Amino acid sequence: MRARHKPWADDYLKKHTEYVVLEPESLKGNWQSRFSQHQPIYLEIGAGKGQFITGMADQFPSINFVAIELVKSIIVSALDKVVESKPDNVQLINTDAKDLRSFFGEGEVDRIYLNFSDPWPKNKHEKRRLTYHTFLEQYKEVLKEGGDVILKTDNRHLFEYSLTSFSQFGMVLDEVTLDLHELEDPTNVMTEYEEKFSSRGQPIYRVQARFQ
Amino acid sequence: MRARHKPWADDYLKKHTEYVVLEPESLKGNWQSRFSQHQPIYLEIGAGKGQFITGMADQFPSINFVAIELVKSIIVSALDKVVESKPDNVQLINTDAKDLRSFFGEGEVDRIYLNFSDPWPKNKHEKRRLTYHTFLEQYKEVLKEGGDVILKTDNRHLFEYSLTSFSQFGMVLDEVTLDLHELEDPTNVMTEYEEKFSSRGQPIYRVQARFQ
Repeated sequence: MRARHKPWADDYLKKHTEYVVLEPESLKGNWQSRFSQHQPIYLEIGAGKGQFITGMADQFPSINFVAIELVKSIIVSALDKVVESKPDNVQLINTDAKDLRSFFGEGEVDRIYLNFSDPWPKNKHEKRRLTYHTFLEQYKEVLKEGGDVILKTDNRHLFEYSLTSFSQFGMVLDEVTLDLHELEDPTNVMTEYEEKFSSRGQPIYRVQARFQ
Repeated sequence: MRARHKPWADDYLKKHTEYVVLEPESLKGNWQSRFSQHQPIYLEIGAGKGQFITGMADQFPSINFVAIELVKSIIVSALDKVVESKPDNVQLINTDAKDLRSFFGEGEVDRIYLNFSDPWPKNKHEKRRLTYHTFLEQYKEVLKEGGDVILKTDNRHLFEYSLTSFSQFGMVLDEVTLDLHELEDPTNVMTEYEEKFSSRGQPIYRVQARFQ
């Protein structure tokens, strides 16, 4: 997602350390200390403007949500939403997902969400896809036993790639749908992308896959 | 596939025992004896009117093909094609696929094709789908180690179901495509259904999954 530079973003994030974790490494193995309730942690990688994570946090108060977003000028929009709704079960991290193991202890996370991740369509960029096996290795380590990954995307090639990548890594596909919006599901929290693509009639793909 | 009754079908099949195996049980473990060359055996379950199997046999002379089709009035069309093209690498069986283990020895088959199988959309008919786990158990037994199943369908729900059924059975997905005809692939032999659906612009789904 492109966004214009926002010179004030840094200060804004630093001003809200009740929601923004500036040094995620320091919390490794100790994330529950950031929340008022000790309850399962669901992690979204690539949270964008935060519509999904704040919607989920509102719908599932018995889950603690952590959202990672690399782009500073975008995560500030997520922070806007959090500052407004003041959930006690959302924490934000402005960083890259490639060092996940340095932020989370083994088995500290219960579920990972990948929503409309960058498809990196060129073969030479395969390693950057969030379902490339090096990422799956990280997910497996930070997820508890039997933890799962839920991926939503409108990108057919990323979806095809991810199905085989999950399977070849030894994950089990528990649910696959090639048209998430065929049936209205009131519990499905849409991301910004999802609203846009779905309103254009594009199918949204979803898979839930579990590590063994 | 519905077809009108053809009273002459029985006699026609019996007349061509060079291509039609009337007692497949008697060949268990000994299928190579029906072919002029000792080479891998690919099995199609639900061969319909035989366009796929005869096209494949023509394209891949170094493979022996066995085609199973339950409906007598349909398999006669497959036999028509075989009688005309006279391949030495095609054998037909007019029977149900549920007794596969009584026809083939362990590891006797190298690959199984499921083309446009009946989707049996109702949940109560799940057991009849050719990717239900009881069928997978049979496939695993008659396939050699590392043998695979290739499924093509235009039916989204059967495809979604099959992906999870394969995965939960412990199979590995080696390739998934949600739009087989996006790229023209001259090696893809189309079935009758495939031609029809594809010409209407419907996507054809395909998965190649391997037993471990």
